[in-house]
Amino acid sequence: MTRQFLIDEIKKKKTYLCIGLDTDLNKIPRHLQTHPNAIFEFNKQIIDATKDFCVAYKINTAFYEAVGAKGWEMLEKTESYIPSTHFKIADAKRGDIGNTSSQYAKAFFETMNFDGITVAPYMGEDSVKPFLEYQNKWTIVLGLTSNPGSSDFELQKIETETDELHEGVHIRKKETSYLYEAVIKKVSTWATQENLMFVIGATKANDIMSVRKLIPNTFLLVPGVGSQGGSLVQVSNAGLTKNCNLLVNVSRAIIYAGQGKDFDLEAGRIAKQYQQEMEGLLKDSNPT
Amino acid sequence: MTRQFLIDEIKKKKTYLCIGLDTDLNKIPRHLQTHPNAIFEFNKQIIDATKDFCVAYKINTAFYEAVGAKGWEMLEKTESYIPSTHFKIADAKRGDIGNTSSQYAKAFFETMNFDGITVAPYMGEDSVKPFLEYQNKWTIVLGLTSNPGSSDFELQKIETETDELHEGVHIRKKETSYLYEAVIKKVSTWATQENLMFVIGATKANDIMSVRKLIPNTFLLVPGVGSQGGSLVQVSNAGLTKNCNLLVNVSRAIIYAGQGKDFDLEAGRIAKQYQQEMEGLLKDSNPT
Repeated sequence: MTRQFLIDEIKKKKTYLCIGLDTDLNKIPRHLQTHPNAIFEFNKQIIDATKDFCVAYKINTAFYEAVGAKGWEMLEKTESYIPSTHFKIADAKRGDIGNTSSQYAKAFFETMNFDGITVAPYMGEDSVKPFLEYQNKWTIVLGLTSNPGSSDFELQKIETETDELHEGVHIRKKETSYLYEAVIKKVSTWATQENLMFVIGATKANDIMSVRKLIPNTFLLVPGVGSQGGSLVQVSNAGLTKNCNLLVNVSRAIIYAGQGKDFDLEAGRIAKQYQQEMEGLLKDSNPT
Repeated sequence: MTRQFLIDEIKKKKTYLCIGLDTDLNKIPRHLQTHPNAIFEFNKQIIDATKDFCVAYKINTAFYEAVGAKGWEMLEKTESYIPSTHFKIADAKRGDIGNTSSQYAKAFFETMNFDGITVAPYMGEDSVKPFLEYQNKWTIVLGLTSNPGSSDFELQKIETETDELHEGVHIRKKETSYLYEAVIKKVSTWATQENLMFVIGATKANDIMSVRKLIPNTFLLVPGVGSQGGSLVQVSNAGLTKNCNLLVNVSRAIIYAGQGKDFDLEAGRIAKQYQQEMEGLLKDSNPT
């Protein structure tokens, strides 16, 4: 999916909601649990009921792998079922040496047809590049995550040295920043705004403002709103730009909103609430 | 698998070889490529021919995911086929917020029966802990990897602050180290030598010596020997301890040693060469 297509969908539907399909067999409504394709059946009904209120779906691979090969089949079926008007994210946090990352890219961009995949930056450039080689596919690199453990490394101070040329003389320049900021700065030099997004946790609206100073026009995928406690208003005020450049993900608060036979309607109702709130926030951020 | 069992196997078989099953449908012998279970069939023959010369197998999940749900089935079959005397590693580089890492742990430790999984440390403690909660299962955290991209973040200098108590007074202590060293130090406080290993790339024997100073008795999983150019002798001299504490992984140089119908015998022949070299190195490192 191109950046322009995504922005057009956001403007048309007046929403930047991404719905996370973290589908756990133990948490879906009782009457579906014995269905032979329970996970897919649940996802299908959720997608049907919510697709008008969101522009993206994010599939968390862990929940599918936990069920084994059958789960992987449900993952494939779900990816196929999501309308091609919606940005499809494999939330897979992959990343390995080059020849292995190429295989992951193949898995999610060729064997399946995801538009984007989340990638862990720890192993550096050649672990990220294979994902960037695909036309109209997106690499969504972990910047600052929404979990408590983000303080262990992401929020530690890192010294980076750069070599700058001043009037023919090389000057070593030292700079100190948070690891996650160093990740954002370095990874941004490997890609463009047409194929790169960053994951920035929603529990930290102030940090979203700092990130916006570094990358004013790069899409951010923001998890953590809803069950994890992030505030949609704060995140949006900090992160929205003229072209939106924001996808806010909500998982549990939408997909497990209801437990009865009308769970899909309940999910749709909550998704619509988010859409309406986002419509107002989009208007506020971009008054015409 | 317990640490003692693994050490006993190493001593009994006089080898610390781990064989990497990075099985790529395009690289296995021609006559197997049309087999309905090609990847499993290849692995089965490789395992049969090499199991006497190694103590561990490492399955690189990317190569299986690239083939889709069928690949995941081959992954499960391969895991089941590896004898329980061998340490089974899922080289999956997983890691996510706590409730998601729990699902990955379930996938690899319950749904399948791996003994260890490789985990990326970027997201910090709650992304690693769910793997550590299983008895006799191992978390193998990325320390310093063998790829060029390791210089981007792993080898950048990080400032860590610790709070030390001296005679009732809190003293802030600043320390500068490479990110990978900070990872090793911090992660080591979350686990024990009975459930934690680190990945340390073999292309950097000097770095293995630095790591040994930090963690003299923790198992290291060392990839990069063979096709990636690392030297077994240098790695072993730097990393071997009294109880060995080393698993050296070789993938392509063994599994693709032959391309004919006797590819398994060729793989066995190369694996045996590694075993014999390791037998000598074990003797040198621990003369009695």
